[in-house]
Amino acid sequence: MKILCINPNSSKEVTTGIKETCNKYPLTDIPLEVIDIPESPSGIETYQDAALAEKYLLEKFFTLEKSYDGFIIACHSDIGVDVLRELTVKPVIGIGEASMLFALPLGHKFSILSLKEKKIPQKEDQVKRYGLEDRCASIRATGLGVVATYQDKKEKLLEAGFKAVKEDGAEVLILGCAGMAGLDKELEKIIGVPVIDGVVSALLLMEGFLRYQLSTSKMRKYL
Amino acid sequence: MKILCINPNSSKEVTTGIKETCNKYPLTDIPLEVIDIPESPSGIETYQDAALAEKYLLEKFFTLEKSYDGFIIACHSDIGVDVLRELTVKPVIGIGEASMLFALPLGHKFSILSLKEKKIPQKEDQVKRYGLEDRCASIRATGLGVVATYQDKKEKLLEAGFKAVKEDGAEVLILGCAGMAGLDKELEKIIGVPVIDGVVSALLLMEGFLRYQLSTSKMRKYL
Amino acid sequence: MKILCINPNSSKEVTTGIKETCNKYPLTDIPLEVIDIPESPSGIETYQDAALAEKYLLEKFFTLEKSYDGFIIACHSDIGVDVLRELTVKPVIGIGEASMLFALPLGHKFSILSLKEKKIPQKEDQVKRYGLEDRCASIRATGLGVVATYQDKKEKLLEAGFKAVKEDGAEVLILGCAGMAGLDKELEKIIGVPVIDGVVSALLLMEGFLRYQLSTSKMRKYL
Amino acid sequence: MKILCINPNSSKEVTTGIKETCNKYPLTDIPLEVIDIPESPSGIETYQDAALAEKYLLEKFFTLEKSYDGFIIACHSDIGVDVLRELTVKPVIGIGEASMLFALPLGHKFSILSLKEKKIPQKEDQVKRYGLEDRCASIRATGLGVVATYQDKKEKLLEAGFKAVKEDGAEVLILGCAGMAGLDKELEKIIGVPVIDGVVSALLLMEGFLRYQLSTSKMRKYL
Amino acid sequence: MKILCINPNSSKEVTTGIKETCNKYPLTDIPLEVIDIPESPSGIETYQDAALAEKYLLEKFFTLEKSYDGFIIACHSDIGVDVLRELTVKPVIGIGEASMLFALPLGHKFSILSLKEKKIPQKEDQVKRYGLEDRCASIRATGLGVVATYQDKKEKLLEAGFKAVKEDGAEVLILGCAGMAGLDKELEKIIGVPVIDGVVSALLLMEGFLRYQLSTSKMRKYL
Amino acid sequence: MKILCINPNSSKEVTTGIKETCNKYPLTDIPLEVIDIPESPSGIETYQDAALAEKYLLEKFFTLEKSYDGFIIACHSDIGVDVLRELTVKPVIGIGEASMLFALPLGHKFSILSLKEKKIPQKEDQVKRYGLEDRCASIRATGLGVVATYQDKKEKLLEAGFKAVKEDGAEVLILGCAGMAGLDKELEKIIGVPVIDGVVSALLLMEGFLRYQLSTSKMRKYL
Repeated sequence: MKILCINPNSSKEVTTGIKETCNKYPLTDIPLEVIDIPESPSGIETYQDAALAEKYLLEKFFTLEKSYDGFIIACHSDIGVDVLRELTVKPVIGIGEASMLFALPLGHKFSILSLKEKKIPQKEDQVKRYGLEDRCASIRATGLGVVATYQDKKEKLLEAGFKAVKEDGAEVLILGCAGMAGLDKELEKIIGVPVIDGVVSALLLMEGFLRYQLSTSKMRKYL
Repeated sequence: MKILCINPNSSKEVTTGIKETCNKYPLTDIPLEVIDIPESPSGIETYQDAALAEKYLLEKFFTLEKSYDGFIIACHSDIGVDVLRELTVKPVIGIGEASMLFALPLGHKFSILSLKEKKIPQKEDQVKRYGLEDRCASIRATGLGVVATYQDKKEKLLEAGFKAVKEDGAEVLILGCAGMAGLDKELEKIIGVPVIDGVVSALLLMEGFLRYQLSTSKMRKYL
Repeated sequence: MKILCINPNSSKEVTTGIKETCNKYPLTDIPLEVIDIPESPSGIETYQDAALAEKYLLEKFFTLEKSYDGFIIACHSDIGVDVLRELTVKPVIGIGEASMLFALPLGHKFSILSLKEKKIPQKEDQVKRYGLEDRCASIRATGLGVVATYQDKKEKLLEAGFKAVKEDGAEVLILGCAGMAGLDKELEKIIGVPVIDGVVSALLLMEGFLRYQLSTSKMRKYL
Repeated sequence: MKILCINPNSSKEVTTGIKETCNKYPLTDIPLEVIDIPESPSGIETYQDAALAEKYLLEKFFTLEKSYDGFIIACHSDIGVDVLRELTVKPVIGIGEASMLFALPLGHKFSILSLKEKKIPQKEDQVKRYGLEDRCASIRATGLGVVATYQDKKEKLLEAGFKAVKEDGAEVLILGCAGMAGLDKELEKIIGVPVIDGVVSALLLMEGFLRYQLSTSKMRKYL
Repeated sequence: MKILCINPNSSKEVTTGIKETCNKYPLTDIPLEVIDIPESPSGIETYQDAALAEKYLLEKFFTLEKSYDGFIIACHSDIGVDVLRELTVKPVIGIGEASMLFALPLGHKFSILSLKEKKIPQKEDQVKRYGLEDRCASIRATGLGVVATYQDKKEKLLEAGFKAVKEDGAEVLILGCAGMAGLDKELEKIIGVPVIDGVVSALLLMEGFLRYQLSTSKMRKYL
Repeated sequence: MKILCINPNSSKEVTTGIKETCNKYPLTDIPLEVIDIPESPSGIETYQDAALAEKYLLEKFFTLEKSYDGFIIACHSDIGVDVLRELTVKPVIGIGEASMLFALPLGHKFSILSLKEKKIPQKEDQVKRYGLEDRCASIRATGLGVVATYQDKKEKLLEAGFKAVKEDGAEVLILGCAGMAGLDKELEKIIGVPVIDGVVSALLLMEGFLRYQLSTSKMRKYL
């Protein structure tokens, strides 16, 4: 058995961050591979980025589907997750959905720390599509781009995270971009609430799905 | 001023149907052009179809944007509408959204007559994204494909339409696919409730938007 | 064919404003008449005003119904729209509903700029009745009465409008009173987001409904 | 102290039924008077009936306000309740709202047994305006008019009531018209779930409000 | 006939406050007894307190059920209400639910003035369980414990109450703890909106339920 | 590290079923213990059962908390989960919540196959408390008790499961009682959609939570 974790953009920095994160939480039995999509934009900040990334992901997927047993989309907007679920019966998990599922049992409401203001409406649509709006305290823009220095990420995530907890009633925080991978535990210690990274959540969830031999329902939506 | 109506699939039959529909409701001042996307799938029934169509639509759009003043996406799933709104400040209207907006002032709740069972969850997601779930009585599958004979379309739309009115409490019906264009008034006469075609709705709405000089908000979502 | 636009209050100032607005967006084919209800209160700010205006509107309607093909109620609270839809099969559009429908395709969420604080709960009920609460960022009181000086209206609408955009996440603004007609484009230029006037929206929507030969559903609610 | 119970239609039969119902549950301390509005329609089945009844109710109210300490509107659609709350600080209760409030502590979900099919959308709007849609199992049409024979009422209420319990999961039933007064306990015995009459509920609630010296909030909505 | 009002904690101060409140609104026909549960925690601030109180309440209930005709749980979290409704057909009312039902006909939205921050999520769950989230303007923490000095309670309730009215749009306020009994009318005079005490509401509602001979539905939930 | 899985009732049959299920999905690193609560009722079918079980669970928990690193409550109603989250910072997962979280990424909507009709309202409350009502197609009663023969369970689960898929649009099914453990894969093969067992889901989720070193938020709700 083998899991494929796809960073649907072309940023090597993000891919490296994902790899480092995966190595911190070794899957005991199931080997993991991390790739990115070199044709894709370097970050997915716009609807245009998303449309292009989805197309390249889709093309690549046909050559990859047979060699793996589960697929993780390492983009917090869960780009292409619906398409891939349609194309394979094997489990497909997006890090956005996974991060929210991991947040739910840990507290009353979560907040998502996202990139620019522009992302907020899109994140609202995403949360609503999963039916989780009642559990979402807020979506906070940090002003960050997909790629940023560690120090910049840390400062802006701390600022937005503290506001989410104090002003919006968040009890759990979610890192709203794969590019934020690796900051979870450090923020957790400073802010004092659980901070969820979607890559880790998706990996651990996927491992569970594979052990439990779960596959995507082919009844209607993903037929 | 000029409107472009894009059928994002490659079916000439559907494009012809759209053209005929447009001619039935002549726009007095604003010329209209109807095109399709020859690289696209012949119908958009799956998430894969949608992803491919969106990509080809996007590529084509860059060469078209300057020559028109408003854009209609003639696919009831409103493929690519978010992307195009991001790429231009000119108004962009999908026939799915337009059909629902036209249905609202005519009755308490509408039902959408869609294609296969598989489409129902996707239509539910779409209605919810527009925040209109409280006004939607039901989404009914007809079992039709994008392309079908006139007789087949009529029979299956009548059957699903009567059920929507009698069992689900629909007061208005919506044709849930551009391929159903042209059947609205005939169904209306037989079933006895307004039947809305999204292409007509989008055209008339677009004409209004252009006269009123409305453009897409560039505040956050479509920046 | 002829459209009747009814200002359901008795303010000549408001009627004149509506007429001027209508003339800015000439309907090419369909003549339009604007009247008010001289027996009505001079503005509709209370539930009592609404009840009285509805009664006088209803009485007048019996003598008017035959002479027109579509009816616009030029009061943002959509006074009497349900009654009129019951009394005629011809389309009836309120400027409140029309303004919201026009706002939807232009951005993620709209805010309504209303009159006094007292109006907010009533507007909340109205938005909820249309099932649009998920698309409404906020309802902001300007403190204005139905009749006010141009300068006063402009200042207070700008103040409330900027707050709606910056604090509530509005991407589109709606003028929440017929008495605000004529300020849309000026506010739009200053605030930088689309500003929707309900009178214009209702006129353009009505023109579309008449061309498309749509009539009110007589299935249940408006039988 | 004195309570006024207003039947906002002109049907003497309905008024007599209300009086008999009131006498079954004597208010120990607070005298009660029951009147109807002779100028009103004989039953409130349409939006037009409602608009007319509201106008006549309003006119009459100015001469009545001073002589009573609390007002009950004995129409299940709660005609005029908002207007009256605006016109007086004394408590005003509609039998529709009261019946739902009494139903809530008795079971998981209630169903409303209403008159014709046409009433269902209006009842849906009413339940939603009170924010109680999650507690409402269904609204069932009996096909009854406001005035009907006892036997006809009983048969049709039993049929709709059993369906609500068996098919919709109702645990409590509500009589959806003042004209159904007096059938509650008989239906209760046969169907085996609590059956709520709005007139009784409103009377008992009003007595409580008067003892507790509660008055309508004049903060925003009813100022 | 006899009503039992159970304070499910062991605080004599709270019990005394409840008794004094009950005496202010004498039930004309129906005698009332107030008890507490000496084995219970002295206040119910945590889930643990609630679980223990529910257990002791349940044990005591078996010996009490036969001697009374209606039961009031004088804890604003409505501890044990579901259990007791299952164990008896006689009406059971919690002061939390009763306070919200009494607030509804008095204004557009209510706010609950609760104890510590920790209570807010639990109150949100409670309001949502009753399906009343659309009518709830906010839940405000006062920082109070169950037992506090009169002066401390008054000051903190005033502060939170004014904020609820001015910042959250509350038109009615609810005392969110049985330990706040007796402050309603004083706060009402100062803040200028109705202030609802749940103990009084539950008593008056129970009197109504008993006169109307209402009992808990045994159809599904409370079988 | 060690996980404790608590069956909060006293049925040895259920405990044995849980143990067998756990053994089918061996946790590679983390030892697991399964216990029941001998003082508890033999099954949790009523609110009374739940209150008693919660109390005994709570008492036992004080002696267990130190010896384990994560706690699973093997009752689909998630009895005591809120209390335990308050008492420890270590992760606590109920099999009800876990089963729903595992169902979400596999299809559009899930249905819960529960025991008797009486359970349906309680399950509705539970789904709503988690904010997942939009993802829940239906809750179906099987008529089963907590303990039943394998053949009886299989037949009734198949009947309810097929109805959920065909009539309610379920794409994923959830076993709504710990006593149904072990039937997941067999039903899955026959019905053709994923069937989720909460015990397995909770185990795999807990393993993920422990590896990721997640703990319950102590910000407000569970402080």
